[in-house]
Amino acid sequence: MADPRFFSVAGPFSLAALAEVADAELGDGVDGAKQIVDIAPLDEAGGDHISFLDNKRYTEAFEQSRAAACIVHPDLADRAPDGMALVLSEQPYLGFARIARAFYPLPAVEAGVSPNAHIAEDAVVGEGSRVEAGAVLGPGCETGKRCHIGANAVIGAGVVLGDDCRIGAVASLSHCLVGNRVMIYPGARIGEDGFGFASGAQGHLRIPQIGRVVIHDDVEIGANTTIDRGSGSDTVIGAGCMIDNSVQIGHNVQMGRGCVIVAQAGISGSTKLDDFVVVAGQAGLAGHLRMGKGARIGAQSGVMRDVEAGAEVVGAPAIPPRQFFRQLTALRRLTEKGAKK
Amino acid sequence: MADPRFFSVAGPFSLAALAEVADAELGDGVDGAKQIVDIAPLDEAGGDHISFLDNKRYTEAFEQSRAAACIVHPDLADRAPDGMALVLSEQPYLGFARIARAFYPLPAVEAGVSPNAHIAEDAVVGEGSRVEAGAVLGPGCETGKRCHIGANAVIGAGVVLGDDCRIGAVASLSHCLVGNRVMIYPGARIGEDGFGFASGAQGHLRIPQIGRVVIHDDVEIGANTTIDRGSGSDTVIGAGCMIDNSVQIGHNVQMGRGCVIVAQAGISGSTKLDDFVVVAGQAGLAGHLRMGKGARIGAQSGVMRDVEAGAEVVGAPAIPPRQFFRQLTALRRLTEKGAKK
Amino acid sequence: MADPRFFSVAGPFSLAALAEVADAELGDGVDGAKQIVDIAPLDEAGGDHISFLDNKRYTEAFEQSRAAACIVHPDLADRAPDGMALVLSEQPYLGFARIARAFYPLPAVEAGVSPNAHIAEDAVVGEGSRVEAGAVLGPGCETGKRCHIGANAVIGAGVVLGDDCRIGAVASLSHCLVGNRVMIYPGARIGEDGFGFASGAQGHLRIPQIGRVVIHDDVEIGANTTIDRGSGSDTVIGAGCMIDNSVQIGHNVQMGRGCVIVAQAGISGSTKLDDFVVVAGQAGLAGHLRMGKGARIGAQSGVMRDVEAGAEVVGAPAIPPRQFFRQLTALRRLTEKGAKK
Repeated sequence: MADPRFFSVAGPFSLAALAEVADAELGDGVDGAKQIVDIAPLDEAGGDHISFLDNKRYTEAFEQSRAAACIVHPDLADRAPDGMALVLSEQPYLGFARIARAFYPLPAVEAGVSPNAHIAEDAVVGEGSRVEAGAVLGPGCETGKRCHIGANAVIGAGVVLGDDCRIGAVASLSHCLVGNRVMIYPGARIGEDGFGFASGAQGHLRIPQIGRVVIHDDVEIGANTTIDRGSGSDTVIGAGCMIDNSVQIGHNVQMGRGCVIVAQAGISGSTKLDDFVVVAGQAGLAGHLRMGKGARIGAQSGVMRDVEAGAEVVGAPAIPPRQFFRQLTALRRLTEKGAKK
Repeated sequence: MADPRFFSVAGPFSLAALAEVADAELGDGVDGAKQIVDIAPLDEAGGDHISFLDNKRYTEAFEQSRAAACIVHPDLADRAPDGMALVLSEQPYLGFARIARAFYPLPAVEAGVSPNAHIAEDAVVGEGSRVEAGAVLGPGCETGKRCHIGANAVIGAGVVLGDDCRIGAVASLSHCLVGNRVMIYPGARIGEDGFGFASGAQGHLRIPQIGRVVIHDDVEIGANTTIDRGSGSDTVIGAGCMIDNSVQIGHNVQMGRGCVIVAQAGISGSTKLDDFVVVAGQAGLAGHLRMGKGARIGAQSGVMRDVEAGAEVVGAPAIPPRQFFRQLTALRRLTEKGAKK
Repeated sequence: MADPRFFSVAGPFSLAALAEVADAELGDGVDGAKQIVDIAPLDEAGGDHISFLDNKRYTEAFEQSRAAACIVHPDLADRAPDGMALVLSEQPYLGFARIARAFYPLPAVEAGVSPNAHIAEDAVVGEGSRVEAGAVLGPGCETGKRCHIGANAVIGAGVVLGDDCRIGAVASLSHCLVGNRVMIYPGARIGEDGFGFASGAQGHLRIPQIGRVVIHDDVEIGANTTIDRGSGSDTVIGAGCMIDNSVQIGHNVQMGRGCVIVAQAGISGSTKLDDFVVVAGQAGLAGHLRMGKGARIGAQSGVMRDVEAGAEVVGAPAIPPRQFFRQLTALRRLTEKGAKK
């Protein structure tokens, strides 16, 4: 399936092995020794492929699929076509993710420092790490083991990376401490000055930004995203946060574990996100707010107030969805009435 | 007119030559041999310049202009000042674009590979191409003929460029196939992982993104724009699409021919745009939608549903403009009434 | 306070010296000879630190602070805890900014050109300037004195920088003239083609963009911000403008002095901002508009019309705040009524 120009597929794997990888069960009568060579969508999969059904909207495609095997919720097992081997999981999408990662693992880092990289004398490149051509490592910076520093990336003075980090091409990091297994995509800008200044009759006077960015383990930061360092205390990105492309995160923002920030969203200075907050695309959060655990912020929302744990808000200014859609309906009715006059 | 520090002007050209370039007609009595040395706006043009009138708002400036010549719609010809040579076209702006390109052609690529570029042994640099200092070409990548790879740009492993492509400084490309005459501006990030993961009790698990970005001929992609590769199938940018700066295009998006995406707009995963869709600045499109041929999406719109061919929508959630403005009016009236009480 | 890994603190300074730096007065009975070693927030400061009180919300923290000294408005002086040395200023935040800059001055540029920088033969590097590894300076470009060109930055052909400019890592500049003391952060893209084309039956035809970007003194331009060059006339950024991250500024935009543009805002082509206009985060301004002196544009606003000097607008389409909030109230009441039925 995947273009061999860019990807190489591992395997084949037996169904028994895949079920174990996926933390799932083989269906009744499934031959665990059956060899599977690749993943594929339901409508493209053939006799050597495993597919998945997660969204019920695709049940019809499931019924008609020619996939050799499929990971599926037990409740939908009876909809399977004859001859399809089932792998049963309460969380089929998560199980499929694990299977996909078995077939397409992140390529291992091949140790080596390009002769065309520019590394400060006292910088430390960890064992097993790779530094590509044109990358610049500043004075006193350190990478952990098995890190990959992409071509033309710039790691500023004093920056510390944990083990197994991957820094994309042309990304730049400064004034930051980075945990393990952190992926920073190309063009991300980490640790620059926050937007802090005092304004007087002579204009604006930049205030020194003397905090850092602290990034915990297993974080992903998308392409061209910007995360400013703290003004005094630190900007903190909690473990397991997933941040998409072109997101802006202001100084002193503190994010808990597992937050998800979708593309082009912006979080203003000193706002705090508790664990597992989701901020959808192009949303904007004002400064000095608190988003409670698991709060969900809708796409393009403009959040002006704190949001309670577990709550959802949409619109600008952001309000609960029920209220938002009631207002939309009221507005629609108003114009219908107006039109009848 | 243009600063010679940065631009050099071609020409001079005769009016007859310019009329031919513009696919236009010389007006009655115009001396086709008259030499024109440069383009200029109506209010700055002098006796050696050609200007244009497209927007009727500028008719007064046209009447008072001292331009030697002007390309204009035949309907407005009688408003011309005495002595101005007219070049008549049903599409004067398009005609002017052609004339401007004659005076200021894209500079030809001067073949040559900088000794300071870093090119993998098995990478192929096409005939007549130029690679600037600090550019990195990964293993197995190929450029067509007469390509220009800007300083510190990074072309990832296996990437293929057609002929006459121009890749801006510090741009990065991976997992993509690029057609002919494609221009990618500085800082664009093409082919990175889409934002796809499965969430479970242990957090978020990235799903391998094993598609590509396929970019057809004559596409332009603005500075710092991000286009993610497909998750399984490809992200596709159709021929002749014009994409502005800091746009975000998610995985599996498919764009037809000639679409126009204005700055800071975002298109979520798997959404399809038919030919000639226009998405204005800062608009956001949800995922898995379809925009019909020629659909027009207003600035800052939030599109949650399919849009039919030829239709226009504005607002968030996006609705037809007539309905949007009627709602605005109703809302305004409501508060006026409220104020009177 | 600040991590010595990344920052070094100047000083100590006497209170008398700090009062002078801050253009402030020592309070009654303050020992001007008292030595201060660092700045700190009210709640963290100890016996060697100076802090500040600007926002009255923090008066309680002020009353309980153990800071040796504090810069504060005279009106709040009587709320100070016993033993705290006061530095009195009508503009305590501005005064604190000056004190902070004394403790944490921008590090001086250490002259030197990296042997790994790539500098065109006829490029001029001003006296006392530093060029980092991987930076590329194109033909005919010039830097002033004491400039710092970051790692892997690209300065295009003909670009001119004044004195004391700092160009961040991986930034790229082309077709621009830059004043003195200008700071351009990593990943900013200055001087690329504006988004101008004529559309016809054969598709879109790019129109040559033959203007420049002119940046006056003391401007700051945030990370990954894009500023397109003019189409014919110039794009102009006035002295002292502060531009945040991921802002988009279209061709021919003209900004006066001291404007503030917050992250992810976008300004469309040919719009003019008079002095001291403030555009908040994610706002969008349509093209060909005029924002009067000191106009304030709210976050996420969509501005479709001119805004008068000193006026404030919010919402999309943007309207005066009073009207905006009245409409919100009316809408809320409407749904409350609806709910009662």
